[in-house]
Amino acid sequence: MVKQVRQISGVSCTVQLSKRILSDRIVAGTVRIHGPNFFWLKRRSQLDNARKMSRQTARIADPKKVNSELFTLTYGALVSQLVRDYESVDDVNKHLERIGYNIGIRLIEDFLARTNFPRCHDMRDAADKIQQAFKLYLGLSPGISNWSNGNEEFSLTFESTPFAEFVELPDSCSNLKYGNILPGVVRGACEMVQMEVQSWIIQDTLKGDNITELRIRFIKKLEDAIPAGED
Amino acid sequence: MVKQVRQISGVSCTVQLSKRILSDRIVAGTVRIHGPNFFWLKRRSQLDNARKMSRQTARIADPKKVNSELFTLTYGALVSQLVRDYESVDDVNKHLERIGYNIGIRLIEDFLARTNFPRCHDMRDAADKIQQAFKLYLGLSPGISNWSNGNEEFSLTFESTPFAEFVELPDSCSNLKYGNILPGVVRGACEMVQMEVQSWIIQDTLKGDNITELRIRFIKKLEDAIPAGED
Repeated sequence: MVKQVRQISGVSCTVQLSKRILSDRIVAGTVRIHGPNFFWLKRRSQLDNARKMSRQTARIADPKKVNSELFTLTYGALVSQLVRDYESVDDVNKHLERIGYNIGIRLIEDFLARTNFPRCHDMRDAADKIQQAFKLYLGLSPGISNWSNGNEEFSLTFESTPFAEFVELPDSCSNLKYGNILPGVVRGACEMVQMEVQSWIIQDTLKGDNITELRIRFIKKLEDAIPAGED
Repeated sequence: MVKQVRQISGVSCTVQLSKRILSDRIVAGTVRIHGPNFFWLKRRSQLDNARKMSRQTARIADPKKVNSELFTLTYGALVSQLVRDYESVDDVNKHLERIGYNIGIRLIEDFLARTNFPRCHDMRDAADKIQQAFKLYLGLSPGISNWSNGNEEFSLTFESTPFAEFVELPDSCSNLKYGNILPGVVRGACEMVQMEVQSWIIQDTLKGDNITELRIRFIKKLEDAIPAGED
């Protein structure tokens, strides 16, 4: 197992890399993330191509896409499965956040590979990057608003999200945070670039609000560290 | 509850529609599918727009898209959850197929809304439609091959699918049909247009095959019928 601390987007990112490292950004070998929610995952030609493209141009490379409705239904199947698995809706909410976290720590690699963004200067800069990530991955352009005085907390606002499209919550799931994968993705992705953040949903169109509002709070900059249990 | 049998693409499609029916194809009211794998799902402006577009042009309307990697990871989370839930890999395979079936009976609505395809004449025609659906929903162009003598059975072949990208199966899941959602989607979608088909994976790149091959066999044409338990 090879380890490397990578300085990306202003904060460093610690990753375990198996096999070989071809650049400071992209791994042509196999990156194994064997968390509780995923099978072995490997990097392949897609990211090699992305690497070439990101070197050739400083703009976002065009990624592969799938239909949004198919995604909505697949996500719905996942949430439904969790609702059946757990007695408590709170546990479902936590699990969705955790799944999002695991997706986030993976997606950030793809995001960094596809973009050539320079170092983040501050949270306003980070907010801009997160906004662009939503554009890249979900085709959404959330608004950025409600900055705290110290510029350490802000909101992303969505008129709609593909997670919740066509969905109505049954009465038995009124406390369900259906789209709770979203704050998890943000938390996981930020952690991989050494930013510890809190993120949570404070408004939700599924609960009758006019918008969905995702709150993000900067907690601290993480020190580079090798995760426990790894060589 | 309003019921209507719709003649679409050569075979009729029975749907339960709540509220009102605005056309023979699209429902602006709420379509409720409350099966074992989904929350209440409702039709909204997206399909209204698709209806307008499909009337204006006979070609496929451009749908909303999400990033393929995000889809891959979300699907991976679903499969992983099922593997944890069920002791038997066979049960996971069955459940994935069932989830696919439920997605298929929903996606066919969207597909019919977005396309303006005329009545299917035969299985070769149906195969062509299924191929185009894969293009529309997954951005894939599978090959059509290996027709049976009676033209009632054929294969769709994929060099890769977004379901399995970056995935390696651990040894404990060697019998897992990771992408078993696919034959389910095909079965569900066909059933909604009154075609009973069998579908199953016979080659899989995750098992070391060069391609993924999905076999589809026509069983019979279904009679229009109102599902049991409905008014």
